[in-house]
Amino acid sequence: MRQDQDIGMIHPTALVDPGAEIGSGVTIGPYTIIHGKVQIGAGSVIGAYCELGHPAHDPAQGGLLSLGSNSHIRSHSVFYEGSVFGDGLMTGHRVTVREQTRAGRNLQLGTLADIQGDCIFGDFVRLHSNVHVSKLARIGDYVWLFPSVVLTNDPHPPSDLHVGVRVEDYAAIAAKSVILPGVTVGAGALVGAHSTVCRDVAPDSVVVGSPARYVCETREIRLRDGSGAPAYPWRRHFHRGYLPEDVARWLAEFS
Amino acid sequence: MRQDQDIGMIHPTALVDPGAEIGSGVTIGPYTIIHGKVQIGAGSVIGAYCELGHPAHDPAQGGLLSLGSNSHIRSHSVFYEGSVFGDGLMTGHRVTVREQTRAGRNLQLGTLADIQGDCIFGDFVRLHSNVHVSKLARIGDYVWLFPSVVLTNDPHPPSDLHVGVRVEDYAAIAAKSVILPGVTVGAGALVGAHSTVCRDVAPDSVVVGSPARYVCETREIRLRDGSGAPAYPWRRHFHRGYLPEDVARWLAEFS
Amino acid sequence: MRQDQDIGMIHPTALVDPGAEIGSGVTIGPYTIIHGKVQIGAGSVIGAYCELGHPAHDPAQGGLLSLGSNSHIRSHSVFYEGSVFGDGLMTGHRVTVREQTRAGRNLQLGTLADIQGDCIFGDFVRLHSNVHVSKLARIGDYVWLFPSVVLTNDPHPPSDLHVGVRVEDYAAIAAKSVILPGVTVGAGALVGAHSTVCRDVAPDSVVVGSPARYVCETREIRLRDGSGAPAYPWRRHFHRGYLPEDVARWLAEFS
Repeated sequence: MRQDQDIGMIHPTALVDPGAEIGSGVTIGPYTIIHGKVQIGAGSVIGAYCELGHPAHDPAQGGLLSLGSNSHIRSHSVFYEGSVFGDGLMTGHRVTVREQTRAGRNLQLGTLADIQGDCIFGDFVRLHSNVHVSKLARIGDYVWLFPSVVLTNDPHPPSDLHVGVRVEDYAAIAAKSVILPGVTVGAGALVGAHSTVCRDVAPDSVVVGSPARYVCETREIRLRDGSGAPAYPWRRHFHRGYLPEDVARWLAEFS
Repeated sequence: MRQDQDIGMIHPTALVDPGAEIGSGVTIGPYTIIHGKVQIGAGSVIGAYCELGHPAHDPAQGGLLSLGSNSHIRSHSVFYEGSVFGDGLMTGHRVTVREQTRAGRNLQLGTLADIQGDCIFGDFVRLHSNVHVSKLARIGDYVWLFPSVVLTNDPHPPSDLHVGVRVEDYAAIAAKSVILPGVTVGAGALVGAHSTVCRDVAPDSVVVGSPARYVCETREIRLRDGSGAPAYPWRRHFHRGYLPEDVARWLAEFS
Repeated sequence: MRQDQDIGMIHPTALVDPGAEIGSGVTIGPYTIIHGKVQIGAGSVIGAYCELGHPAHDPAQGGLLSLGSNSHIRSHSVFYEGSVFGDGLMTGHRVTVREQTRAGRNLQLGTLADIQGDCIFGDFVRLHSNVHVSKLARIGDYVWLFPSVVLTNDPHPPSDLHVGVRVEDYAAIAAKSVILPGVTVGAGALVGAHSTVCRDVAPDSVVVGSPARYVCETREIRLRDGSGAPAYPWRRHFHRGYLPEDVARWLAEFS
C-alpha cells in the first residue's frame, strides 16, 4: 500500500509485498526485498540488497516490523519481522536485526551489527561496527558501544538460562570489550578497550583489563586536546548528532 | 537438472546453472546464484542473494559442492565449490565457506561465520555468530564455538607453516576466545570467554584468561538456575535441537 | 563509457551508470551496481551484489573511486566514492571501504574488512578477515594485519579528537589484537595474538599481552618447521604473492 505519488523512488528491481505500508517519500534501492509485515515511516531510505520483514524463525516471535520516519538502512541489511524502532534509525551495511527488538529514537547500528533480538534500546544509542548484542540486553539512552563489543547472556554455555547485560544511560564501552552475562554497566561508566567485564561497573567509574578492574572515576580523565578539560561526562564536549535541546540541557548542566 | 515439479519454488530472479542438481522440494530465494558444480539435497531452503558453488581460487581445490537434504542457507551467504556437508546444515546470514570443507550432519554456522576451508567438522557442531575457522581445523562432534571465537593456524605469521587447531567432542569455547595454532581443546572442556589458549586443554577442564590457565574441572560448575545441579557436562541438561536418541543416551549416561 | 568490445562480460543484471569508466576486459558480476563516479582499470573482475561508488555521506568527502588494473573485488562488497587504489587490489567478500582511502599496489582486504576511510595504505599490504581500520590510520608497505585486528583512533571515546595508528613497513599484527589510538608499531615488529597495544612498539621487537609487553627481538623466534632458521624478518622465507624483484632483493639482503 503506497501512500503517495513518489512511486519512482522504489527501484524497479525491488520486490515489495503489496501488504507492506510504505510511507511518503520513501526510497527503496535496487534488488531489495520488502515482505508484507513491514511498515516504513515517511522519508526513509532503504539501500540495495536489503531484506526487511524476514519471516520469524518462531512464528510466536513474529508480527509487524515497524521503522519510524526518516530511517536510513544501508545495503545488504536484514531485519526480521516483529521489531519496533523509533524515528531516525540509521544503520551501516550488513546489519542483522532479529525478532522482538525494541528501540527508541535515533538508534545507530554500525556496519555488521548483529542484534540477536529480544532486547531493548533507549533513545540515541550508538553502536559502532561489528557489535554483537545477545538476547535480553537492556540498553539505556545515549549509550555508546564501540567496534567489536560483545554483550553475552549465557553464564554456562550452552544452557537454557539466559541473563542479559544492562548498560545504563551515557555509558561507553570501548572497542573489543566483552561483557559477561548479567553484568550492569552503570550510568556514565567507561569500559576501556579490550576488557572482560565480569562484575557490575559503578556509575561514572572507569574499568579496564581482563578481568576488568577499577581504575579511577571518569571525571579524572582529561581531554588530550591540550585544553586539560575533563573528557567525561562526554556530553560536556561531544555533541555531534544530538538534538539541540539535549545539547542545551547538557551545556547548562556543566556551566 | 530439476528433479521434481516444484519449479515454482525457485524464484524467477534466481540464476541457476542448468548443471546444478536441485533436489525435490528445494526453495531458492530471489537474486540467488547457483553455479554448475552444486548438488542441493531435497527439502532445502536457500535464502536471497546467496552464491553457491563460487569457483575455486585454485582449480585443484575445486569440485562439487554437496549440501545434504533439509539444509537451510540464509541470505547473502557464499559457498565455494569443493565442499561436502551432511544433512541438515543450517546457517545464519552472510556465511562464507571456502573450498575443501567437510562436515557431518546438522552443522550450524552463525551469521558472519568465516570458514577458510581445508577443515573438518563432525556431527551436530554449532558455531554462533562471527566465528573464524582457519584452515586445517579439526572439530569433533557436538562442539560449541560461541560468538567471535577465532581458531588460528600460523605459529609465526606470515609463514608457509600451518598447524591446525583441534577441538574434541562436546567441548565449548566461549565468546571472543582465540585458540593458538596446534592447540588441542580436549573433549568436554570449557574455555572461558575472551581467553587466549596457548597450550592444550585437558578433557573436562575449565581454562580462562590470557594466557588461559586451568581453573577447575567442568563438573565443579553449578547451574545458576537455583537447582544447584552441575552445569557440565552440558549434555546433562541442554537438549535443544538434538536427536531424541542422542538425548535418551545422554539421560541414561547421567541417571 | 565502455572502452572495448567485451560487452558480454558485464552481466545483464548489473546496473552500470553510463558515467562510469570501465576499462578493457573488465568483468562485472550479476546484480552489481556501479555508480557514475567510478573508474575501473583494465582486466578487473567485480563479483556479484557489489556496490561501487556509493555516494559519500558528506559530499566534501566525495569524488572519483579509482580502482587500478587487474583488481578483483569479491561479492557483496561496498566501496564508497572518493578513494584511490593502485593496481592489483584484491578483496574477499563483504568488504566495506569508506571515502578518502588511499592505497598503493596490490592491497589485499580479507572478507568482512571494514575500512573507515581517511586512511593510507602502502604497497603490498595484506589484511586477513574481519579487520577494522579506523580513520587516520597510516599503514606502510608489506604490512600484515591478521584476522579480527582492530586499529582504533579515539583516546577518550566518544570525542572529536582522533589520533590514528601507524604501522610501519613489514610489521605483522597477529589475530584479534587491538591497537590503541596514536600508537606506532615499528618496522618489522610483531604483535602477538590477542594483545592490547597501548604504547609504541620498537622496530623488530615482539610484544604480547594486555597491555602488551616486550618479549624479545623478532630475530630470536625460530621457524617451527624443523629447520631452526629464523622466522623473522619473515621476508627471509615467505614469498608467496610478491614481485620477483622484491623477493630477489630480500634473498640478497639475507644471503
